[in-house]
Amino acid sequence: MKTVSEVQCFSGRQGYYQHRSDVLDCDMQFSVFVPPQAQTHNLPVVTYLSGLTCTADNVTSKSGFQRIAAELGLIIVAPDTSPRGDHVPDEDSWDFASGAGFYVDATQEPWAHHYQMYSYITAELPALIEKNFPVDMARQGITGHSMGGHGALTIALKNPETYQSVSAFAPICAPSQCPWGEKALGNYLGHNEADWQAYDATLLMQSRTDRNYFPEILIDQGLNDNFLQEQLKPQLFADACQQVNQKLNFRQHAGYDHSYYFIASFIEDHLRHHHAILTAV
Amino acid sequence: MKTVSEVQCFSGRQGYYQHRSDVLDCDMQFSVFVPPQAQTHNLPVVTYLSGLTCTADNVTSKSGFQRIAAELGLIIVAPDTSPRGDHVPDEDSWDFASGAGFYVDATQEPWAHHYQMYSYITAELPALIEKNFPVDMARQGITGHSMGGHGALTIALKNPETYQSVSAFAPICAPSQCPWGEKALGNYLGHNEADWQAYDATLLMQSRTDRNYFPEILIDQGLNDNFLQEQLKPQLFADACQQVNQKLNFRQHAGYDHSYYFIASFIEDHLRHHHAILTAV
Repeated sequence: MKTVSEVQCFSGRQGYYQHRSDVLDCDMQFSVFVPPQAQTHNLPVVTYLSGLTCTADNVTSKSGFQRIAAELGLIIVAPDTSPRGDHVPDEDSWDFASGAGFYVDATQEPWAHHYQMYSYITAELPALIEKNFPVDMARQGITGHSMGGHGALTIALKNPETYQSVSAFAPICAPSQCPWGEKALGNYLGHNEADWQAYDATLLMQSRTDRNYFPEILIDQGLNDNFLQEQLKPQLFADACQQVNQKLNFRQHAGYDHSYYFIASFIEDHLRHHHAILTAV
Repeated sequence: MKTVSEVQCFSGRQGYYQHRSDVLDCDMQFSVFVPPQAQTHNLPVVTYLSGLTCTADNVTSKSGFQRIAAELGLIIVAPDTSPRGDHVPDEDSWDFASGAGFYVDATQEPWAHHYQMYSYITAELPALIEKNFPVDMARQGITGHSMGGHGALTIALKNPETYQSVSAFAPICAPSQCPWGEKALGNYLGHNEADWQAYDATLLMQSRTDRNYFPEILIDQGLNDNFLQEQLKPQLFADACQQVNQKLNFRQHAGYDHSYYFIASFIEDHLRHHHAILTAV
């Protein structure tokens, strides 16, 4: 792992790092914020998954999370959204391939070799984080925005023993039933829709049979979000939570759109949500 | 004036606007944040002047000022840093001409026709703001970063009847004595250094004879700032304040650099500084 940059922010350290990913077969960058409390003990970690077209830089430079993470003592990890590099297959499309890995392990060619973002986020990157940062990996939360909200919900639902807390900003809640999701899952996983269920938060929630429910899931959604009706469909996820008795705090905010101004407005509530659950573990 | 975009943020409205500037003879963009308190009464306004290479977008998207402005009830105006456009003279240089207007009224060719940023910031833009936003122009503060800190200090010192409060982040404090300033002032104003005094915060402070002192000036400076020794020289301004008995809160922060992570870390203190003075007017 190579340090790209490190600067002081709210008495903590905001860094960018680069490493060779084996599962993605390319170099990857990510950001980590380490708050001042890490000087004395290992800290809970919250992973933030970004949306379509984003890198780690959007949330790191625009959301203002460092202020509240520094207050609460949370390490924040922001990965990239897809494999990168001239040798990685891509398409001339903003909502598929580069910048749009959808946090799945692709099974279809030409994507399967590099587009293994699910394994990257849930296994390879956490191992690297554990080795290099003062983290308490027994206390992990996950959140994200849009495609990253889809990633956070699905990853948490598939790994409740790893992630004790989960939240999302304007998540894609039912990718099997929206254009972004149909395009991505169809290309990455093939056109047998039964294979999509493992990456659809609404279907995963509907099919839950265990009792490892989360204490509460927090979702914020702006009502002036251009993607709400066609792409995001949070009501389907809210209905699924109700069906299986999963507690959900689904907040709908008049006037807010899909931008980082929306995320900046509510990130404090999300980090407090994670902190409360992770420190009660 | 044309609205480029408006989004909700912290229950206020973050907008970008475009207008035809007569004094700069070009189209200009700027941002304005209007907090929720403006629904009931006109509010104090703080102008933030940006640094070299920046536009209004850096502070608007990266500093997180909206949270505290929404709490305190401050309107925040962020202008651009120079005239813009294909017909505006430029140089292939990041520290001069486009993005580097230095908040002066140029007297030398080919700059004099367009590069009138002092008049733009102190007269034309405030008139536009007063006409279009719910501002109380009797309560105005000014702040800025680097070249914009130089702009804030010099503009406040030259117009204490207009700006009751002033602060700066890592300002260029003595442009007559640093490479950035010598290049800019030499080109915009000519090589008679006597003409530079009107735009040098340290010289302006040294020459004060009136009693319109500011209640207090706030300056924050990171000690890991690469530009501190050669370009910024805040100690010269601090010495000048002491000479003329101007109260200065000059805070030096170990570890912080020149980036927006530094600004984000301390912008709350600056807005509280302005709010306290402006609401005591």
